[in-house]
Parts: sequence; C-alpha cells; structure tokens
Amino acid sequence: MTTSGALYRQAGVDIDAGNRAVELMKPAIQATYTPNVLADVGSFGGLYALNDLPAGPVLVASTDGVGTKVKLAAELGAWRGLGHDIVNHCVNDILVQNARPLFFLDYVAAGKLEPETVAQVVVGIAEACRATGCALLGGETAEMPGVYAPGALDLVGTVVGLVAREALLPRPHEMLAGDLLIGLPSSGPHTNGYSLIRRIVAGRNLDEAIDYTADGTAVSLGQALLAPHRAYLRELDTLAAAGIGVRGLAHITGGGFYDNVPRVLPAHLAAHIDTRAWTPPPLFTALVAWGGVSREEAYRVWNMGIGLVLIVARQEEAALRAALPEAVVIGELAPRTGAGVVLT
Amino acid sequence: MTTSGALYRQAGVDIDAGNRAVELMKPAIQATYTPNVLADVGSFGGLYALNDLPAGPVLVASTDGVGTKVKLAAELGAWRGLGHDIVNHCVNDILVQNARPLFFLDYVAAGKLEPETVAQVVVGIAEACRATGCALLGGETAEMPGVYAPGALDLVGTVVGLVAREALLPRPHEMLAGDLLIGLPSSGPHTNGYSLIRRIVAGRNLDEAIDYTADGTAVSLGQALLAPHRAYLRELDTLAAAGIGVRGLAHITGGGFYDNVPRVLPAHLAAHIDTRAWTPPPLFTALVAWGGVSREEAYRVWNMGIGLVLIVARQEEAALRAALPEAVVIGELAPRTGAGVVLT
Repeated sequence: MTTSGALYRQAGVDIDAGNRAVELMKPAIQATYTPNVLADVGSFGGLYALNDLPAGPVLVASTDGVGTKVKLAAELGAWRGLGHDIVNHCVNDILVQNARPLFFLDYVAAGKLEPETVAQVVVGIAEACRATGCALLGGETAEMPGVYAPGALDLVGTVVGLVAREALLPRPHEMLAGDLLIGLPSSGPHTNGYSLIRRIVAGRNLDEAIDYTADGTAVSLGQALLAPHRAYLRELDTLAAAGIGVRGLAHITGGGFYDNVPRVLPAHLAAHIDTRAWTPPPLFTALVAWGGVSREEAYRVWNMGIGLVLIVARQEEAALRAALPEAVVIGELAPRTGAGVVLT
Repeated sequence: MTTSGALYRQAGVDIDAGNRAVELMKPAIQATYTPNVLADVGSFGGLYALNDLPAGPVLVASTDGVGTKVKLAAELGAWRGLGHDIVNHCVNDILVQNARPLFFLDYVAAGKLEPETVAQVVVGIAEACRATGCALLGGETAEMPGVYAPGALDLVGTVVGLVAREALLPRPHEMLAGDLLIGLPSSGPHTNGYSLIRRIVAGRNLDEAIDYTADGTAVSLGQALLAPHRAYLRELDTLAAAGIGVRGLAHITGGGFYDNVPRVLPAHLAAHIDTRAWTPPPLFTALVAWGGVSREEAYRVWNMGIGLVLIVARQEEAALRAALPEAVVIGELAPRTGAGVVLT
C-alpha cells in the first residue's frame, strides 16, 4: 500500500495488471492516512503511531467477511458498495464495545483478479475508512486459481480500534429492569442472511421496483439488496457529545435479535422487544412473503430494519430522541424468566 | 472465540458442526491468552490491554494469506501446518520492522466447512501463536457455497505488533558499503511460489523421498512441500539479548531476493549476493531441474533456502555467528550502479 506497492503485493497477479490496480487505488488509500500513519517506503507491515493514548488503553480488534453478498455484487457488477460493507461492519463490531477505529486492513482474493474490480472494492473500502476516520493501513490481493469459483471473489477485513478501559461497553452490572431498548435503522440486510436471500430472489427480476426514496425515486430489488452497510459511529459520537450514557450496544448481525441482544445482558435480565414498534422496510416484508419465512426465522436471520440496539436508562429517552431523531424505542429490559430475548 | 462463541461465529455453518469445531479449538485458543487479553463474554471484538508501553509506541500490522499452498494441503489432507504457515509468515512480516507480535486474528472460509478441518487449522494457528507469544484474539469462519471451489479453503491472517519508534527497522541511513548480508535458513518454500510448484509437481509421486533428516529419516516430496513456515522471532530475540545491532531485515517472500532485499536499502547501495555461499536444499534443486526454471526466476519466486536476510556491520560477524550458528554470510552491500540487488 506504500508507493512501492510493498504492502499491497500482487500475489500471483500479473504485474502490469497489478500495477494498474495499485495506480487506481493509491490516491483513495492515501486520503485515509491520518497523522498517526508512518508511511515508510519499504515497509513490510503498516505503521501506526499510538499518540495521545487515554489512561488504561485497550485495543479492540475484529476480523470478518461480507458473506455471500459478494455473489450478488458479482451478478450486478457493483463492487464499490462491498468496500463500504466490510469496513462499516467491522467498525460497528468494535463500536459496540465503545472503541473508535484506528486502522483497517483488507484482503481481496479471487481465482482471477480483474484490476478494475479490485480497485473498485478498495476505493469503496478507502471511502468508508475516510468517513469513519480510520486509516487504511495495509492490504493484500491474492489470485488463487482453483480455490475460488470462476467469477467469485472474497473480501475480508480487519479493524483495530481503541477504547479506555473504564469506557468499555457493555456495562451489564449497570443495567436495570425498565431500561429502554432503542433501535437505530439499518440500511438494508447489511451483510447478513444473504445465502437465504439469494435462494429467495433466485429467478426474480432484480430491476423491479421494491421501494421508493423520500423524493419518490424507485429503488430496484437489486439496489435494495446491495445497499451498503451503515456505520453507527457518528450516532455514537453524537450521544457522547450530548453526554448521553449508554449501558450496552448490540450490533444486529448473524443470529439477528436472538443471538446478538442477549450477549450484552446480565444473566438476570431479558430484552423484551415489541416488533410492532417499527415497520420493516419493504425489502424485508417482500423477502418474508416470497420465502414463506417464519417470524422467528426472519428476526433470527435478518435485522428487519434495525441495525443497532442501544440500552439506556429510561430517563435518557427524551434527550436521546432529540439527539437522534431516527431512534425508535423498541422495548425494554425485564427480569429474565427464560430466554434472554422475547419478541412480541 | 469467547466461551459464548461470540468472536468465532459460524457464518452459515450448521450450528452443531460449528459448535463441535469450537469445542475442538477452545483449549488451544485459550492457551494463547496472555495477561493482556481481556476475555469478556459477550464481546463482539477481541480486547487487548496495552500495558507497559515503550516510549513512542508504534503498532505494526499486516494481513496475508497462504496462497495456493492450501491446494497442496487439501490434496494431502494435512491442515495443521497451514496454521503455522499463516502465523509465522505474518509474524516475520512485522518482525522485519523490529515489531514483536501482540495478537493475531484469523479467517477461514470454504464452500463447505468440515469442523475437523477448521479445528486442525485453528489448532495449528494457536500452536504457532503460543510459540511466538502472540494471543489468538479473534477469528471468523465462513461457509460460502458458490464462492469457493469444492474442497478448497482459504486462510487469511492478521497480526498486530508493537515496536518503539526509535527501534524501528530498517535503518537505511546507517547502512554502509561493506555491511554484511547474513542469511538464515528457511524451512522450505514457506508460502511462496506454490502456483509454480504445483504446476511442476503435477503428476509426480508426492510420497517419493526428496530429502533426509539429520538422522537419516526420509522426507517425502509432499512433506517437504508442506513443511511449515518458520518464524525468526527467537533468533532476533537472541541477537537483541546479545546486544548485536541489526541495520535491516528482509523477509524473503513473494518476489524473492530481487523484490524483498532492495526494499530496505538506501538508494545509493546495492546488495551483492553470492548464491554459492549456501547450498539450496534438495527440494529447490529438484524443482529447478524438473521445471527447467531459470536461475533468475528461481531466486525471484522462491527463497532457495534462505528465509531471512539480515544486514549488519562487518564487525558484528563473529558475535553474530556465535549467537546464531546456522547463520551464513551470503554477501555484502556495495555502491549501487544499477539494480538494487546483484546475484552472482
């Protein structure tokens, strides 16, 4: 990722094509550099200076992929959004522990790498990194004939963030029965449940209108399915700036509400979620109808329109809704008698 | 990777099989935890406390894969070594900047995940992490039908290490004509050049003896090809403990001597390497002969028996050879007139 191409080696990619891809990505990558990035030519690893550390600094790290959303992206030839998907997914995964991202590294592999495709993915990654203040510190492309199916590509990301130990979330010992569960809207299925989605939409016309924007523009099924994963960093920064305390955050990813909300709760409390508190976007309603998906399965596989759940003291409600107008009260904590989450 | 399986989600893997894999890996993973790992149940990301930081702390991070060595491993059903490969490769990549590894994260993906296969890979990763004092902080498995070829698997790793800014390598401004180039033996092709290797050995009997250990035991072609990547951390620690200064380190990976040695040199110096200074192991000699590979291509694609090159002041030679008996003087720095590396 240095100008010598040191960090972005083209393993097995033909050199000219690889160099072309690097030329296409370089300005976007360099735009993500923060003053902490030490961009030494000849580096084998990316360098990040730890300046201005809080007391009790804790690094929070997460690796993930975007799942079979890559297959839909390939079908529609739309690669840039995948870059946003992987960055924002990873950023949210450490945000729920109250960490702010420092840097990101990516890995893009395929049987045969098309330089323009790789460049689009990496430019998308760089855009999302820049939007979240995260340096794109390194990466790797790999061409692996025989490992990947023809035309397929995989995309893996790793984020490293920082938090003061005393600011770590969740804080299960502070949670009380009566605390509110607040939902923030998702931008679509994000990166979860795409194997089921692809089975359901197989054979359908991806150009058909499934939704409309605020100004009445039609959104096609394909566009809705590929809507990039949203990051919730700005919203959490807004709450912090307003002095609104959060007791826990759950990123609604694989396993949906059932797996992700109970993870942050103490053993004696359960999350009671009223699914009538919000209207799932038309894409989810259509997927449920087309696939004959049960309610439980839908809320287990997809986020159904809520990408992040915040647990806050009841008295924070008014301030929180003023700070984040799109926030919805979706339930509350109650003494646990059985499961850690109860959906009604 | 927590006991709740939070960090090691089984994206798309059937839950029972996934849980079985997690049970198989858990003790090995937990054995890598250092006192800095904060293993909170419910964590979405892995937590690493930054204690005892040096002045001017710099994080060094690198992401990589093991390339098409995965195809050979699949053919021979030998997965554990791949775990060592990915960890040691990544550890070496940050070691050349003088960083010591803090933690590692892995990603294992396939069209269909076999729990025992994944567990073997991750147990190998955990063994190598433990050997290098690196915590296995997180990871992800992904089952992606249609993305990976049947029977194929990819393995991606990310390492994050730490170094004091004043200890960073290389130090090109300290290098002088006459400085020695010291080679440390590789354990095989490590993770480079496997696409060419697989083409050359296609149709050959992988059980034939290609080499012999010190006690005369035969080493088969398959075993030699899958020999796990070696880490050079202990050797660098030995040099540091002996007070032997190093001016630069080059990890001989993709691009061989030609690409990796010049990266750490100042513009006015070139590396003059005498390839007669060491005897390439029989595997390399055989690959060159079977494939009709030119000398230049061989030293560009493979490490030819030298996995790490150290640049040291000439007066360090005796002390260095006493500290590391396997070290070989393979050349020296000289004023640059053309290329950054000259092999004779």
